[in-house]
Amino acid sequence: MNRYALIIEYDGTEFHGWQIQSEVRTVQETIEHALAKLTQREIRIVGSGRTDTGVHARYQVAHFDNDKEDFTPETYTRGINSYLPEDVVIKHCVEVPDDFHARFDALRRDYIYTISTKQIAIERQYAWYIPSDFDRKILEEAAAIIFGKHDFRSFMSANSDTDNTVCEIVKSSWKIGSNRLRYLVYGNRFLHNMVRCLVGTMIEVARGRYTLPEFRDFVETPDKEAPVVRAPAQGLVLDKVHYRHNLQDENETLRIDGL
Amino acid sequence: MNRYALIIEYDGTEFHGWQIQSEVRTVQETIEHALAKLTQREIRIVGSGRTDTGVHARYQVAHFDNDKEDFTPETYTRGINSYLPEDVVIKHCVEVPDDFHARFDALRRDYIYTISTKQIAIERQYAWYIPSDFDRKILEEAAAIIFGKHDFRSFMSANSDTDNTVCEIVKSSWKIGSNRLRYLVYGNRFLHNMVRCLVGTMIEVARGRYTLPEFRDFVETPDKEAPVVRAPAQGLVLDKVHYRHNLQDENETLRIDGL
Repeated sequence: MNRYALIIEYDGTEFHGWQIQSEVRTVQETIEHALAKLTQREIRIVGSGRTDTGVHARYQVAHFDNDKEDFTPETYTRGINSYLPEDVVIKHCVEVPDDFHARFDALRRDYIYTISTKQIAIERQYAWYIPSDFDRKILEEAAAIIFGKHDFRSFMSANSDTDNTVCEIVKSSWKIGSNRLRYLVYGNRFLHNMVRCLVGTMIEVARGRYTLPEFRDFVETPDKEAPVVRAPAQGLVLDKVHYRHNLQDENETLRIDGL
Repeated sequence: MNRYALIIEYDGTEFHGWQIQSEVRTVQETIEHALAKLTQREIRIVGSGRTDTGVHARYQVAHFDNDKEDFTPETYTRGINSYLPEDVVIKHCVEVPDDFHARFDALRRDYIYTISTKQIAIERQYAWYIPSDFDRKILEEAAAIIFGKHDFRSFMSANSDTDNTVCEIVKSSWKIGSNRLRYLVYGNRFLHNMVRCLVGTMIEVARGRYTLPEFRDFVETPDKEAPVVRAPAQGLVLDKVHYRHNLQDENETLRIDGL
């Protein structure tokens, strides 16, 4: 029996998120279906974490086991891709140690949220359009409050029931362009809807609905009933999952190279 | 009677091109329909030129006439947008002189063609995916041959019947990234399918199917039967149309700002 990790990119627009649910199209089910066609077996894949309906991933990771001696990682990459629809792609496959676990071994997740302050037609599936009537400078101040280890219960979706709500955020900053803003947030773990609630609420601070001290209270006084605001799913991308084990394809280079 | 110019962005994926045809969805018909809803009149719009099925535009220009004294350019922008589907957007509207003509007055058109050498799910609608088994250096040499004033009849689609096949190309160059290549071609005018035929044939040169001297022959010996190769529509974007008259929105800035 060998264990493999898949590096996966998907456009979340037409998926009901990552995790298998009955009667809707999910990324996990779509990949397991392709893997079954390739191997003629039912093989379960384990992802690094769920993504919600409409959320995209440039670098999601999942592991699975199989004992086909004659299948190389390249066989899996090409073979699974040949059965996948065009909105999900296996970027590469690597053989990993038997005890590798895509979820439990993940050290860091990187998310990027994109906002457009111009209404756009091209690439509209990958950004949240809002008018530019807010104070961009305040966004950086709000992002700085998020940095570090906090109990983020205030920014968790209402129907979530996780006990451990402490996350350590190692990067929280905005890249602010003329018509496009990107929020980069990297951390050891994230609660359900947390990034979308952080972005939506920071925008409300920048619009003047909340003050920075009020925002700081949301972070420093965890409260499931905090009146945070959730940004839409389409602006969010899971950009990378990091492990001690190197999953990097040697041909893989900068994902956003400015071209 | 006042004349207005519209600056338009559209995602060509779901359109059968710019020009009105019966029983298919086109950009021109979609905008005229929205303009009719806003003004309660049937008003014809005149574009700078056609784009084919699947081709995108970041900055297409069209003009129209109307005599609603109480309608400002801002009224048109907001009003038309409120009736448009999400894959076409009026970026702005400006009042222009009565003799302005979106097609005849256009001095220069800028096209950008995007290639991805990695299979992608995100933004797949805006690039042509091809494996990287070609010589990137040769692409620049081929692009240099295109620069200048030539009879581009060899690169025109077979069923086209234009008499004047001479175009002056003022920029023809590749931006080559790790997994993404962009061909930028600016000229006074373009023949039907010309950019796609230039890109498709340059790639065949880079793959070794044609030599650079053979490619030079296609350019220097105009021949409607030349065995050129047409790249797919989805990688192509009409990026800008230039006029003597300044149509620039003061809020408009860099379109691709690296974010």
